[in-house]
Amino acid sequence: MIEEARRLAPRFAARAATTDRDGSFPVDDFADLRDAGFFGLMVPARLGGAGAGFAEYAEVAYELARGNGATALVFNMHASVTGALSGVTDELADALGLPGEALAARDDHLKAAASGRWYAVAMSERGAGSRLSMLTTKYETVDGGYRITGSKTFCSGAGHADAYLVAARSVADPTQVSQFLVPAEAGLRVEQTWDALGMRATGSHDLHLDVTVPAAALLGGLEGLALVAVQLAPQWMVASYAAVYVGVARAAVDAAIEHVKQRGLGHLPAIRGRIGRADAAVAAAHLTVREAARRVDEAPGDPETNRWVWRAKLLAGTTAAEVAASMLEAAGTSAMRRGHPLERLYRDARAGSLQPATSDVCADWLGVDALGGDPDSDGVAPRW
Amino acid sequence: MIEEARRLAPRFAARAATTDRDGSFPVDDFADLRDAGFFGLMVPARLGGAGAGFAEYAEVAYELARGNGATALVFNMHASVTGALSGVTDELADALGLPGEALAARDDHLKAAASGRWYAVAMSERGAGSRLSMLTTKYETVDGGYRITGSKTFCSGAGHADAYLVAARSVADPTQVSQFLVPAEAGLRVEQTWDALGMRATGSHDLHLDVTVPAAALLGGLEGLALVAVQLAPQWMVASYAAVYVGVARAAVDAAIEHVKQRGLGHLPAIRGRIGRADAAVAAAHLTVREAARRVDEAPGDPETNRWVWRAKLLAGTTAAEVAASMLEAAGTSAMRRGHPLERLYRDARAGSLQPATSDVCADWLGVDALGGDPDSDGVAPRW
Amino acid sequence: MIEEARRLAPRFAARAATTDRDGSFPVDDFADLRDAGFFGLMVPARLGGAGAGFAEYAEVAYELARGNGATALVFNMHASVTGALSGVTDELADALGLPGEALAARDDHLKAAASGRWYAVAMSERGAGSRLSMLTTKYETVDGGYRITGSKTFCSGAGHADAYLVAARSVADPTQVSQFLVPAEAGLRVEQTWDALGMRATGSHDLHLDVTVPAAALLGGLEGLALVAVQLAPQWMVASYAAVYVGVARAAVDAAIEHVKQRGLGHLPAIRGRIGRADAAVAAAHLTVREAARRVDEAPGDPETNRWVWRAKLLAGTTAAEVAASMLEAAGTSAMRRGHPLERLYRDARAGSLQPATSDVCADWLGVDALGGDPDSDGVAPRW
Amino acid sequence: MIEEARRLAPRFAARAATTDRDGSFPVDDFADLRDAGFFGLMVPARLGGAGAGFAEYAEVAYELARGNGATALVFNMHASVTGALSGVTDELADALGLPGEALAARDDHLKAAASGRWYAVAMSERGAGSRLSMLTTKYETVDGGYRITGSKTFCSGAGHADAYLVAARSVADPTQVSQFLVPAEAGLRVEQTWDALGMRATGSHDLHLDVTVPAAALLGGLEGLALVAVQLAPQWMVASYAAVYVGVARAAVDAAIEHVKQRGLGHLPAIRGRIGRADAAVAAAHLTVREAARRVDEAPGDPETNRWVWRAKLLAGTTAAEVAASMLEAAGTSAMRRGHPLERLYRDARAGSLQPATSDVCADWLGVDALGGDPDSDGVAPRW
Repeated sequence: MIEEARRLAPRFAARAATTDRDGSFPVDDFADLRDAGFFGLMVPARLGGAGAGFAEYAEVAYELARGNGATALVFNMHASVTGALSGVTDELADALGLPGEALAARDDHLKAAASGRWYAVAMSERGAGSRLSMLTTKYETVDGGYRITGSKTFCSGAGHADAYLVAARSVADPTQVSQFLVPAEAGLRVEQTWDALGMRATGSHDLHLDVTVPAAALLGGLEGLALVAVQLAPQWMVASYAAVYVGVARAAVDAAIEHVKQRGLGHLPAIRGRIGRADAAVAAAHLTVREAARRVDEAPGDPETNRWVWRAKLLAGTTAAEVAASMLEAAGTSAMRRGHPLERLYRDARAGSLQPATSDVCADWLGVDALGGDPDSDGVAPRW
Repeated sequence: MIEEARRLAPRFAARAATTDRDGSFPVDDFADLRDAGFFGLMVPARLGGAGAGFAEYAEVAYELARGNGATALVFNMHASVTGALSGVTDELADALGLPGEALAARDDHLKAAASGRWYAVAMSERGAGSRLSMLTTKYETVDGGYRITGSKTFCSGAGHADAYLVAARSVADPTQVSQFLVPAEAGLRVEQTWDALGMRATGSHDLHLDVTVPAAALLGGLEGLALVAVQLAPQWMVASYAAVYVGVARAAVDAAIEHVKQRGLGHLPAIRGRIGRADAAVAAAHLTVREAARRVDEAPGDPETNRWVWRAKLLAGTTAAEVAASMLEAAGTSAMRRGHPLERLYRDARAGSLQPATSDVCADWLGVDALGGDPDSDGVAPRW
Repeated sequence: MIEEARRLAPRFAARAATTDRDGSFPVDDFADLRDAGFFGLMVPARLGGAGAGFAEYAEVAYELARGNGATALVFNMHASVTGALSGVTDELADALGLPGEALAARDDHLKAAASGRWYAVAMSERGAGSRLSMLTTKYETVDGGYRITGSKTFCSGAGHADAYLVAARSVADPTQVSQFLVPAEAGLRVEQTWDALGMRATGSHDLHLDVTVPAAALLGGLEGLALVAVQLAPQWMVASYAAVYVGVARAAVDAAIEHVKQRGLGHLPAIRGRIGRADAAVAAAHLTVREAARRVDEAPGDPETNRWVWRAKLLAGTTAAEVAASMLEAAGTSAMRRGHPLERLYRDARAGSLQPATSDVCADWLGVDALGGDPDSDGVAPRW
Repeated sequence: MIEEARRLAPRFAARAATTDRDGSFPVDDFADLRDAGFFGLMVPARLGGAGAGFAEYAEVAYELARGNGATALVFNMHASVTGALSGVTDELADALGLPGEALAARDDHLKAAASGRWYAVAMSERGAGSRLSMLTTKYETVDGGYRITGSKTFCSGAGHADAYLVAARSVADPTQVSQFLVPAEAGLRVEQTWDALGMRATGSHDLHLDVTVPAAALLGGLEGLALVAVQLAPQWMVASYAAVYVGVARAAVDAAIEHVKQRGLGHLPAIRGRIGRADAAVAAAHLTVREAARRVDEAPGDPETNRWVWRAKLLAGTTAAEVAASMLEAAGTSAMRRGHPLERLYRDARAGSLQPATSDVCADWLGVDALGGDPDSDGVAPRW
């Protein structure tokens, strides 16, 4: 699939200027992804998927992002849903005491993905960000299922995906936050709010919900599992898109090299030095993402694994922003024209440090951890 | 006039989102500037102007840029034309051997400015940048004046100004580069090419010339003075817009403070630290611009003055880009939405280091100078 | 006196390698300072001094530091004592309700300084740093004066000065912290503890006190004035030595230029760029120190003045460390040999950000202030 | 051996303050290394060694450097000699046309190392640095061998090692630079010149040669192979000590954590953020060194391998200096006292970027390479 991602990237790159300009969704990129079987990337082979692990996913994300970071970022949401579902093994389900129906539902969701069903994530809310503890979207039990009402923001792929992972708080017991997989046809309303500096093609619009879903839509078959999901697999909340930003950073270096060659500016030492330093910084960030991903596969949830997950997020975000800024400076004024790849990449790259967990939060988490504290509770801000 | 600039800035700020979004020209800002007498800012009092020096201009530019950097940048071009003309005192004219008609023409141009005539600059060309030595726009003597043909790029205010300062090379003697003031009605053609990352409202389009102008349009009344003009007053080529970028940087700090207060994020230490460091950096860059400007007034052309001019350009550019990036990080994801001041300021700020002389060229100039070399000839690239 | 400082600097520079190597006190530098009348720099003319203001002092400190930062740092302590005493005008004394004897004592102390008496400061304590609120050195009233007992650390010039400004807490009323001027002959014991990375020649040893001083030693003639002194003139606690670190930074640039010229390395663009950027950074930090100092003279205690004081401290510290590190990199391995000026300057420069208020504390102070908080109470740590 | 290195590191750390203070050689560390069999680390098993590859060496160097960077740096020289000799396989010898005696000599040198013989490197010369093209040390053929005369500088371990790898130029044919292994007893004279900012315990003194060695001392048995050696295995000239500087950087983070915990400063967010960012930066640099080392083992001499070698050197040097500076700032003034680990680590860390290839040269090399040039010939300076 990594090879396949490399094959698709130039096609995505060719379309990126248009979707970025218009803030339109990369519909053709997603058709390509569906056709090439990427929706089944994280689905186990026994359910018809490619059975990829986190490491393979990270490489795919990096390669897709070299084409179009926005596309890779939307795909990341699908990968996180299918990856998290695949991570609920029968053993884990047993340990968590999940009911049998939940396993059947899990398999159904994954089989559908392998057949081309595409999932988005509707987690963040205005004012709460992605912190589960502050969510206000509610659900209550109704005949044959649940009624969910509320509003979400930053929902990448809103209006395009086939179903949405929605986190909501129980009306009956507000300490419980649960996750549902809500089909697009349930009656979601998309409000076109996404019009941002960078990553303009993700279509991360607001989503308004007043829907009723069947009982099987409750992921895990038990209420209150949302926080467990985060704690079991922080990589999906913290760093799964780190690979995307490293891909964007590498694309910026490549675009600068292309530009400098075309303009015949390679003899200027200041430009050479900028490119050399950028190349090394991106290479190191890439290794960090890979190391984190490898450990997620080998020792998920291990403290050292989580440490690498936070390092990967921190370095991907800071490196992308710094490298893109320096590459624009290397390329010069003419690269500031809209439509030039560096103009877009500079804006796309800026988002990495700002997406939660932000770089400042990551640095704090790592510092608390290094000093022997509990970074999930002693840091500057509650995380979830 | 500084007070007046402060009064206008919030009006400019209120319009900035729209002109930035559409890449449209800030027509209302320029009507305000004309009405408030800013076109006569650099015109001596005896000719009806405000008789400002470079230091006063720098403060005006800073204040205007806190409202809208693009407006301030276009105004900078008018200030550079009128400032340079005002700098040609009778004594200097004598020393340069300028003919008497040139002085009368100078006074006419300046009086017109004081009455509201607005000048733009058409200097740069594709492939040549702003280096006079590589210009290809040509002129030749014709009956009653000169015929000028060629194409210019990055002409801020193109299609809106009343006249354009055009640099062109003599067909008869290609070693001569001369400057003309070409009226808008002479038949210039604007090609809408400006669609850039930042400073989108400057309307810095391409300008195609095939015009005939009267003899009085030749500035100085002598051919070949273009290089002299640059060497006599490098501040207008190197650093007159440094004040603009410091103003943009200050606007970014102000916008971040506003945002952080509104969101109640001021208790977060990482945010406070970012704002504190940014505040100090902008304050220092501002002082540097002021010091350079003060010296331009007191000892124009002095080696130490020129040193400060290059320092001002370097620090304004690097500070603006770094500060805006950090302020966006302080404010968080929500400040990335188009229409948010920080979203625009982040893009506007990036242009400072890239506008010639670029930051890398400035650093090299200062290094060569500090090491005892001649920075105008020993550096990485010919400057003009 | 600025000219005089410039004259002395090369003499200090010639001795700096030796005192740095041995960690010995620059006795000869201080003999030079005494002979040239620098001990009376801050003493009003009517008492026999030079009557310098803070701005003039800052320039003197900068010039002395270009010769030897350690010497300038020790001299700073004397300047802070005499400057603060001179700042207690008759009007201020009146407003504070100081007794008449206090004014006579003030004049005596200042006259003595003008005649060559040299004051050091014994403020910091282990565990408390320079925070008055945590001091443990005690004093109690005894017949004819006060008995002071306790231990101080980081006392620059310990064992060499003629008298020491000592802050101590009242045994009778522990809320009161008072300041005394303790003569060297009162029986202080110096413990040779100073053996540091940089600024090795300041002799900032520990001082152990068990002394009895006459009533006139109580500065201001009233108990509990220590905090008032700090709040009235924060420049002496926060930024008086900022000028020293800018001087050290400039010395590093100069040393790098000298080295690069001697080795014939000026053709290397990376080296030129480093020197150019360093030159501009030092120039901007210098302006900031000057601006702060100018405002201290013109509007002492004003909120905007204090803001500049903190900016000056922040920028002086960060600039010195960054510039010295880059200059060492520009000069190369051979400049790492002990005895090379850059080797010493690199170590000296590192101390700036760490001396209180540290750079991180300054950034926080400025951030809290910019966000509308009270930086003296809302920041990360109590300051005094 | 990696485990063994981890066991030794605390012993080295306990001695580091003393050897650093006195600039004395870590004799006890080397006794430990000899006893634990480290001199045979790079020697093939068939000759009695541990048969380690470059990857294993890099980990050993990292672990040793966490104890004492200077010791690790001296050991690096031995590793480079034995590693390069081990790299001359019989196949390579054949391809290079080396005589049979050379293979026997190679085996003898390696067997001796495995038995505890320790080799140093005498390559650099004043004025030439490590560039082979500028060396002035000469050799000529004499009865039964070669006479070598000249002076070397920066010879780590001078006066302590058992033999020295010496590069010298042929008198008969000055285009030939050859390498000899000169026994300590041949009559070398050590001049105690090493007295540097950091890495003070390496004993990198000057070495004066006027010696006669037997024919077998000529490495490879052929003249003129010095450049070939460099080109075949650039890792030994460019990046073998990169691992050392990453180890130093990690030691600085560890020392800061220890200090901050002891002082109870872990609640301060600025300190936590510094430690978190430093931790991530060191982790990334470490991965880069590992990746380079892994590739050296798997595809020595490959263009992509060499690229990683240069990246590793660049990142190790810049990371070490930046991290150590930030950790000192996190720890505060008290960590500046001599004898505090951070005081030493700050100085040791600074040397990384300055050791050839310097960071600026590495950045240029990578930039030229990325732009499609030949970095070994098109860069800012000849490398060898």
